[in-house]
Amino acid sequence: MKLSELGEFGLIDLIHEITDKFKNPRQSSWRQLLVGIGDDAAAWRSGNHIQLATTDTLVQGIHFDLNVITWKELGWKALAVNLSDIAAMGGVPQYALVSLALPGEVEVESISKFYTGMMHLAEQFEVAITGGNIVAAPNIVITIMVIGYSKGKAILKRSTAKPGEQIAVTGYLGLSAAGLEMLKGNISLDAETSNILRRGHLLPMPKVKEGQVLVEQGVRSAIDISDGLVADLNHICEASRVGARIKTEQIPVHPLVKANLPSYQELTLYGGEDYELLFTANEAVVAQIRQALGCLVTVIGDIVEEAVLERVALVDSKGDIAPPKGGGWEHFKDGVSKAKFL
Amino acid sequence: MKLSELGEFGLIDLIHEITDKFKNPRQSSWRQLLVGIGDDAAAWRSGNHIQLATTDTLVQGIHFDLNVITWKELGWKALAVNLSDIAAMGGVPQYALVSLALPGEVEVESISKFYTGMMHLAEQFEVAITGGNIVAAPNIVITIMVIGYSKGKAILKRSTAKPGEQIAVTGYLGLSAAGLEMLKGNISLDAETSNILRRGHLLPMPKVKEGQVLVEQGVRSAIDISDGLVADLNHICEASRVGARIKTEQIPVHPLVKANLPSYQELTLYGGEDYELLFTANEAVVAQIRQALGCLVTVIGDIVEEAVLERVALVDSKGDIAPPKGGGWEHFKDGVSKAKFL
Repeated sequence: MKLSELGEFGLIDLIHEITDKFKNPRQSSWRQLLVGIGDDAAAWRSGNHIQLATTDTLVQGIHFDLNVITWKELGWKALAVNLSDIAAMGGVPQYALVSLALPGEVEVESISKFYTGMMHLAEQFEVAITGGNIVAAPNIVITIMVIGYSKGKAILKRSTAKPGEQIAVTGYLGLSAAGLEMLKGNISLDAETSNILRRGHLLPMPKVKEGQVLVEQGVRSAIDISDGLVADLNHICEASRVGARIKTEQIPVHPLVKANLPSYQELTLYGGEDYELLFTANEAVVAQIRQALGCLVTVIGDIVEEAVLERVALVDSKGDIAPPKGGGWEHFKDGVSKAKFL
Repeated sequence: MKLSELGEFGLIDLIHEITDKFKNPRQSSWRQLLVGIGDDAAAWRSGNHIQLATTDTLVQGIHFDLNVITWKELGWKALAVNLSDIAAMGGVPQYALVSLALPGEVEVESISKFYTGMMHLAEQFEVAITGGNIVAAPNIVITIMVIGYSKGKAILKRSTAKPGEQIAVTGYLGLSAAGLEMLKGNISLDAETSNILRRGHLLPMPKVKEGQVLVEQGVRSAIDISDGLVADLNHICEASRVGARIKTEQIPVHPLVKANLPSYQELTLYGGEDYELLFTANEAVVAQIRQALGCLVTVIGDIVEEAVLERVALVDSKGDIAPPKGGGWEHFKDGVSKAKFL
């Protein structure tokens, strides 16, 4: 069987199975491991704190198109998606390693811009770039690893959502997907709106402080919205063995998206890459979070028993319930030629 | 200017310069950083120990050829080169993250074999594979990151070699480069010798325990031999601002290499990828190391003041001194089409 038939998530399950066979509780690395394959970041006990590590890769032609994104924006985004994974665990990012596979004909100046964009974001979150690796390759592949820690004894996980909890998201959704539609040339907008949508897609701001507040306030279950609202909530449902109901009319669609894109509901449900945080918690904790966070926090649904619902269902304004479309990005199945991202 | 004109090491210097501009001692990540860009691994203080992190990438067509290496061997080697970087710091490897960029037409079975090969090595060194990332891409790119720590308060660095110290290496050199020559079809050998050379190139054994013994016994300066003996010793010379003399007839050439390849001296000086450790220390410490380590330890020269020698010089059996050839692998300058590795 080829990877294109199995798909990304089938492959992750297979890898999980193989590594599980080698798990050995007599080895301290396995014993101290708290979260392995299948969450936003790995987590393990180290002295009296929890260490976090994550990695993400951007491939030219799949995740970005240099006709659209500048090298400076690319540097920012490549780091941002990794910081977002640490945010989704409620952690503090500290160090980044940057691996670049680059064709020899790339301009030196481009790499300067890439690093400058990355360092501007790193500076804001007090992340030090401590090294990495550079190799020649036929196609640009950017892999960044970020190491961080949790301030307290707890972290946010995908596997800890409980029936009865509310589902909430930070900020607005749909801006990144709308930005992508615009950058693909599918819609044209005025200069100011264009600029906001462009930034939404190319310069996402990871919700690092927000993740830390969530964990401090007692939230235990979260994910960042990268694959899409439905797809990411499905990851939580699978890991927690629960179902989830999204009240579609409660989704905080970005006002510019609602005003300019008739397909706004599709974009918010399946678009992804907003890098907002989706979390679950009981009503009282969500109320606390709303106080503690400066940003918008919106309840969009609730978690139910797996026996009631398998995975995510959509509830419309009339109360009618329907399964979502098979949305969200999946590598291999969605193919290499179909670039979802720019 | 293009990367192919600047070369790998020029680019690393440039990146170092850019990140240096953003260094901020008021930020704890920068303040705790002990070793950043320009060594085998990054190192920083974390509680009462030193944390280490490294990353290395293998690109299809540049570092490996699937007509020669099996997927199982590739899994082993991809992890081994990273563990070797932790070994070169005297550290204990703990966790690995694995990022794979893969074409959709790769067989699922191949990835199973890749992970099995990797886990066999991981098991030996008590390393847990804790996650990673998988993306679709036109060309295979494998990036592994390993996180570890130093047991004591010290680590091995490239920048701490001192004039008067001896230069020593663990094990034999040349086996990997000879294996490459054989795999390229440049020489043909009997089955047993072929097998040893093949393993030398495709299944290197990182010198993890040896690195830990070095640091425990008081060594402070080391590197792993990946780019080549001359190239890697040059990295130490540059970082430590010293010169180095290699007595060429003292190099521990692997007996099978000496017996079968007339070009054995070239291979040991410039071949690389043996993943043995090269270190510098005073005579008494080297004598201790020889006792403490089970493996071969050979003194091959000494460190001198930078005023005496700039970088590495070769001394032959008559005492004649000569500069080395411009040997060792450099990405971009050596081009993407010229595959040094298989």
